[in-house]
Amino acid sequence: MPPSVFVIFGATGDLTHRKLIPAALSLFEKGRLPEIFAIVGVARKDMTTEEFRSSLEASAKQFKKHFSAASWKRFSQLIHYFKNDFDTEGSYPEMKLFMEKIDQEYGTAGNRVLYLATMPRHFENIINLMKRYDCIKRTKDRTYRIVIEKPFGTDLKSATDLNEKLSALFHEKEIFRIDHYLGKETVQNLFALRFANRIFEPVWNSKHIDNVQITVAESLGVEGRGGYYDGYGATKDMIQNHLLQILSIFAMEPPKEFESEAIKDKKVALLTKIKLDSYQLGQYNGYAQEPGVAPGTKTETYSAVKLHIDTPRWKGTPFYLRTGKKLARKASEIVVRFKDCEYNLFDVKSNVLVIRLQPDEGIYLRFNAKEPGTDFKITEVSMDFCHECLFPINTPEAYEKLIFDAFSNDRSLFSRWDEVASAWKLVDRIDKSKPVIYEQGSWGPPSFDDMTWREPL
Amino acid sequence: MPPSVFVIFGATGDLTHRKLIPAALSLFEKGRLPEIFAIVGVARKDMTTEEFRSSLEASAKQFKKHFSAASWKRFSQLIHYFKNDFDTEGSYPEMKLFMEKIDQEYGTAGNRVLYLATMPRHFENIINLMKRYDCIKRTKDRTYRIVIEKPFGTDLKSATDLNEKLSALFHEKEIFRIDHYLGKETVQNLFALRFANRIFEPVWNSKHIDNVQITVAESLGVEGRGGYYDGYGATKDMIQNHLLQILSIFAMEPPKEFESEAIKDKKVALLTKIKLDSYQLGQYNGYAQEPGVAPGTKTETYSAVKLHIDTPRWKGTPFYLRTGKKLARKASEIVVRFKDCEYNLFDVKSNVLVIRLQPDEGIYLRFNAKEPGTDFKITEVSMDFCHECLFPINTPEAYEKLIFDAFSNDRSLFSRWDEVASAWKLVDRIDKSKPVIYEQGSWGPPSFDDMTWREPL
Repeated sequence: MPPSVFVIFGATGDLTHRKLIPAALSLFEKGRLPEIFAIVGVARKDMTTEEFRSSLEASAKQFKKHFSAASWKRFSQLIHYFKNDFDTEGSYPEMKLFMEKIDQEYGTAGNRVLYLATMPRHFENIINLMKRYDCIKRTKDRTYRIVIEKPFGTDLKSATDLNEKLSALFHEKEIFRIDHYLGKETVQNLFALRFANRIFEPVWNSKHIDNVQITVAESLGVEGRGGYYDGYGATKDMIQNHLLQILSIFAMEPPKEFESEAIKDKKVALLTKIKLDSYQLGQYNGYAQEPGVAPGTKTETYSAVKLHIDTPRWKGTPFYLRTGKKLARKASEIVVRFKDCEYNLFDVKSNVLVIRLQPDEGIYLRFNAKEPGTDFKITEVSMDFCHECLFPINTPEAYEKLIFDAFSNDRSLFSRWDEVASAWKLVDRIDKSKPVIYEQGSWGPPSFDDMTWREPL
Repeated sequence: MPPSVFVIFGATGDLTHRKLIPAALSLFEKGRLPEIFAIVGVARKDMTTEEFRSSLEASAKQFKKHFSAASWKRFSQLIHYFKNDFDTEGSYPEMKLFMEKIDQEYGTAGNRVLYLATMPRHFENIINLMKRYDCIKRTKDRTYRIVIEKPFGTDLKSATDLNEKLSALFHEKEIFRIDHYLGKETVQNLFALRFANRIFEPVWNSKHIDNVQITVAESLGVEGRGGYYDGYGATKDMIQNHLLQILSIFAMEPPKEFESEAIKDKKVALLTKIKLDSYQLGQYNGYAQEPGVAPGTKTETYSAVKLHIDTPRWKGTPFYLRTGKKLARKASEIVVRFKDCEYNLFDVKSNVLVIRLQPDEGIYLRFNAKEPGTDFKITEVSMDFCHECLFPINTPEAYEKLIFDAFSNDRSLFSRWDEVASAWKLVDRIDKSKPVIYEQGSWGPPSFDDMTWREPL
């Protein structure tokens, strides 16, 4: 990997403390960062590099699985802090000089991985001002990459605006739009499951699959983020990115090769074939009283959609996606319900394959077997493959994977602009004016369209 | 179930003591025998009914899982002994009278389930003499069934002879040719696995299955049965019945309904399409010195065959069957090796489904998953369904199932004459003059035809 500076905008925020720094430290310990490397944290708070380092150390102790004082000591020497409130033009020329000084000190040769971990409303300003003050100074040898946290816009129009700003400064191949669900082991495992197993390939289509349910359920509410969340809601926060991404990997046609752009081509081809059949929105009882939430708010905290995919592979198979806050349990999973047997010999339940994303990542197969005994009675039994049981220590956090990929220039797990745009096009069709109230701790509004959600394991 | 007498020929033998009586007792305890019922043991030894009962009690204590003195007390009242050396004509009229007395005493109305558990050489004599002395006295209401232990003949010719004798006395539907492998839960589970699961149906063919290996390995040698075994050998003892039966259930086309004759029709249709490609015979080092074995014997204690099945479903898939004595481990299993992935995206091992028949009956699926970590590396993992773990107590012994089926007139798990004949036709083609010597405790002779046996789990 070429030398590089990791520039984090929003360096005093939760994401930096809980995820980015612990993940970067872990990569550092494994020797999976550039050998010549520095970190510059950028944020609005007034603080020294020393203060910044010790606040990060406290967080790393809390949020990283195994904290080693020795490796922290070496790692922290690479971390610097630069105060910039993002919106004040004057600080950008100064920031540029600061970075150049880091380049000289560390030998990072002007290469940057910029990470936008601020509130989304700052994204455009940061990009505009970096452009205005020549913070991106291209030469033949320099590499720039920009990593952008979700949400990428709030609808197709604003996303297109943001993308135009970005494109004025960066090439599409330099833009890494984060969807941390893509970094989850089990989501990546979908590729292996589908394309590395002869037993699953032949049944992965509407001839054999009756329906697919994808659930991302949270037990928490907005947890103080009401100001950001209100007016945005579950559809944009979760369906537009995480759930549609999971769906597109689940349902895409096989790529020609296992390579980032080839995969994205197939994902976009799939996304553009998804049709919205119906949807159901909900708001948990008490949401309107959360701090930061507007009185009489119509924002949905639960969103379920019924989709179909207009390809030969999926003709006739409905896909149900749901997500919500304050639901009965935190659980993310894909439930694949197979059709009844072709040979109508027994009266049995249909096979179910559950791909659990969290907690307890794993794969769970319910099938039919003979119940031991003198009668020929068939009963449902299960096989289970527990990802965490098998690989208890080494499962990297999603962010570790994503940061590593940004430095090694692998965009497989980031969203390309046409993916983002297709997803916005789909969810922009949802009229969000009428959420149904549901009780906290329930599974959300009653089901719709005569379908039955399978309760997560 | 109608009243009936269970007549066991060979009543002092191992099979009666270890299997038949413990199994009948267990059925009795579950109320799964006819309400009006008696047992008559027939053998050559001079002994009283009381002596017979107490010798059976000792065996039941040893071989039955849970022995209850109270239920034995009730059960043993139903058991009687009749001395008959099988070959002496004079004892048959006397035996007939004895049975009629039992009928009067118990009200069993002349119905019989006759069980031939003697040495095979007595089968024909018993049948002939029963016929000569009118032991089978048909009336409109009487039901007769005859259960015959394997082997059914020693080649197609002798089997045909035996069958002609039998057919002179019984209808085909009254003849229950035992193959105790068919009573095994996991063999029966093959029906459920294949025909009650949408996920397995579509891949059960040569498009997706590369090859199938069926192993029935024994760690014991001839164990004092050298006199019976020598001149007979592994091919006739195991391949002709157990392994070809397992294969026919594994590979048959779906029956129209889950009913005994419909299943047998499909099994026979399959058996007649099996073609012998090659074979390999072995004899364990030291076999020739076993008691009862002829010096310079050519009898094989190991037999492996390569077959193909000339049906559209199986065109191009080789089937390997092997069985042997004094092998490394006692293990019976079906190994299904799937073809490589259609999408050539990853360099991975092919999927393997293992159906374990014994020990530890269960199903074991090896498939490919992403190894957790920042690289996309694929590794083989497994899902496991352990029959015994899930159903620890209630698994009935195979003989319990077989006896129950004989009384309830279900021939599903018994071999019909055309099944037996087709199997003999196949194995009669094997020239048994040149067994290879192999070491005791090994996996037999080296493999043949460039194939690699998968070592049993």
